[in-house]
Amino acid sequence: MHDILGGSNPTAQAVTGIVNNPSINGQLPFAKPNGAVLPVSNGDNGVVDNNNNIPLLTGLSGATTAVMQNNGGFGNVPVVNGGQLPSGNTLQMLMFGTMTVFDDELTEGHELRSGLVGKAQGFYVGSSEDGTGQTMAFTVMFESGRYADSLSFFGIHRTSVSESQLAIMGGTGKYVNAKGFATVKTYDMTNNQHETDGLETLLEFTVYVTY
Amino acid sequence: MHDILGGSNPTAQAVTGIVNNPSINGQLPFAKPNGAVLPVSNGDNGVVDNNNNIPLLTGLSGATTAVMQNNGGFGNVPVVNGGQLPSGNTLQMLMFGTMTVFDDELTEGHELRSGLVGKAQGFYVGSSEDGTGQTMAFTVMFESGRYADSLSFFGIHRTSVSESQLAIMGGTGKYVNAKGFATVKTYDMTNNQHETDGLETLLEFTVYVTY
Repeated sequence: MHDILGGSNPTAQAVTGIVNNPSINGQLPFAKPNGAVLPVSNGDNGVVDNNNNIPLLTGLSGATTAVMQNNGGFGNVPVVNGGQLPSGNTLQMLMFGTMTVFDDELTEGHELRSGLVGKAQGFYVGSSEDGTGQTMAFTVMFESGRYADSLSFFGIHRTSVSESQLAIMGGTGKYVNAKGFATVKTYDMTNNQHETDGLETLLEFTVYVTY
Repeated sequence: MHDILGGSNPTAQAVTGIVNNPSINGQLPFAKPNGAVLPVSNGDNGVVDNNNNIPLLTGLSGATTAVMQNNGGFGNVPVVNGGQLPSGNTLQMLMFGTMTVFDDELTEGHELRSGLVGKAQGFYVGSSEDGTGQTMAFTVMFESGRYADSLSFFGIHRTSVSESQLAIMGGTGKYVNAKGFATVKTYDMTNNQHETDGLETLLEFTVYVTY
């Protein structure tokens, strides 16, 4: 599953949380009393503009690279000052509560252009205090049979471990009454820019299903 | 299931996405390089005010008619200029990521006033790049037994095909341990204004369930 934030052909977009909150003004969702340094600046001095329209977001990989916002698409999103980029978890904590909706392609191989198997549509929500987990709810529609065959998943995708597991909620078509689970491996493809100019995260699913 | 957007007795309301973005200024979520014409105007000249409080939204039918916003209920919702209404998919693409929460009535027949069977509560999120699919998650509560009997569904509702399929996630009451699926047919009732002044979409469910 290829999840691409930003760039010229994104497949996922954040719709709630930080992107819709014009007044985060330094408030971390779980700011601790000892006070993490506010990583976000509303100023525009020192802004790194990479012209890639890459939003202030971490995707499914939990990657903390890039994170620039240079257009008006998200309106009130604060601009990160290049000199003040927070380290890993601090930024990830900002993602708590952010819902990202996706319409991702499923391919046979790791390459974005390899054989299309189907689409995965749904959403994920940052749901770990430490920024390393996302609640995912989505449906995989297989291209054969006019997308009548589908499997729906629910669970927590964790970026701090090599493999997460999601439960199968059910299915349709040949997968009706499906039971089982999937293991998910995550590959941060942000340094693999020859296929997309967005922030790509690759999820490799191995599905164990009875139906 | 009667899904009614706007009007004097709406049963569904968008809570994220376009309604919360005060500066969409013509940016389609998945604007392609060939550039769809910006369909949205923040100006108020030429606004058609139908006094119906119908929001700038397409409902479950993917209908693209009407779409006026004339009150303060949604705050920053841009007003559509009557002369600039986009055609089908262009407007639907604006709906990507929009979550709509509903509390819809279930009736025996297609008529809104026919026998009440129960309620369906949940949400749907625009989740197709081309605007023809919505991820739905909701629970049907049957009126008999004080709503103790329920079935929960998850899946992709597609408006470009005559019939979609949703998986049953589970159930309660007499439907505990339910398995199965539902087929969903969609009827655009926007031209059937004698029963409601909102934008009504009728979903006809046929449920295949074992429990």
